[in-house]
Amino acid sequence: MSTSVAETQVISPKNLLKHWQGHRALTRRTIEKFPEKDFLEFSIAGMRTPAQLATELLSIGGPALKAIVARNSQPYSEAGLTLASKADYLKKWDEETETINEFWQQLTVDDFGQMFNLFGQYEFPIVENILYFIDNEIHHRGQMYVYLRALNIEPPFFWER
Amino acid sequence: MSTSVAETQVISPKNLLKHWQGHRALTRRTIEKFPEKDFLEFSIAGMRTPAQLATELLSIGGPALKAIVARNSQPYSEAGLTLASKADYLKKWDEETETINEFWQQLTVDDFGQMFNLFGQYEFPIVENILYFIDNEIHHRGQMYVYLRALNIEPPFFWER
Repeated sequence: MSTSVAETQVISPKNLLKHWQGHRALTRRTIEKFPEKDFLEFSIAGMRTPAQLATELLSIGGPALKAIVARNSQPYSEAGLTLASKADYLKKWDEETETINEFWQQLTVDDFGQMFNLFGQYEFPIVENILYFIDNEIHHRGQMYVYLRALNIEPPFFWER
Repeated sequence: MSTSVAETQVISPKNLLKHWQGHRALTRRTIEKFPEKDFLEFSIAGMRTPAQLATELLSIGGPALKAIVARNSQPYSEAGLTLASKADYLKKWDEETETINEFWQQLTVDDFGQMFNLFGQYEFPIVENILYFIDNEIHHRGQMYVYLRALNIEPPFFWER
């Protein structure tokens, strides 16, 4: 096989997408657990609300993957999102699920090893940028779990994807 | 190349180890940020203390990787750890860093795709179990970040590994 990678690899594009979408499904269930008002307003120690964290995740995922496919280093922006309710967020979440599935198919195996300057700011191999999206989502969802516990709400099971 | 994997892959064992150890280095810096007393006692909403979360991470990482290499499905246990101070935890953390580096070298590329029943409970391809260790660590560290903010302490930069 001729690819740009010099050594044998252990995760396939298909499984990496499945891994990512599994995490996104768990984050969706986490968002669903918040009462409307708390989703929009709750915070601990001045940190961002669940809605603000979800806005960040929605401004990375689909838009970042599109940018990767187009090799477009446009800056990070949350400006395009006008979401006012939890239902708005969940609807957008589902749209981005489809966007990610669609644009993922446009990545070749070679693409994953190529350097790209995401948002004009993060110059890394594309696979590392994608791992970062997943890590960042897990990190912020971990915060949401604490918020849920503080609200006396049981979070979803972490190991269910 | 002859491996058990049927399609082309995008992450090498070497880079997956680097990714994991990068996260472990960030978790170590997160632990360091807690004052001694808070590391051992602080909590929000009855969740585990930073020390208890670190105990879980130390009971997975090295021990789980050893179990994978030996194909030993012994149950999960925190019983072997007798750590009383933040310094104890950090020392153990560094020892496990070396353990992980050492045992990682004993994994072949084929191993990553093989099924293994980790802790007699999690029957998945080995690479998925390893991704789970990383995800679980990011998740609990995300909780620690909220604890730090609630203690009015600036967490480490998430993007520094």
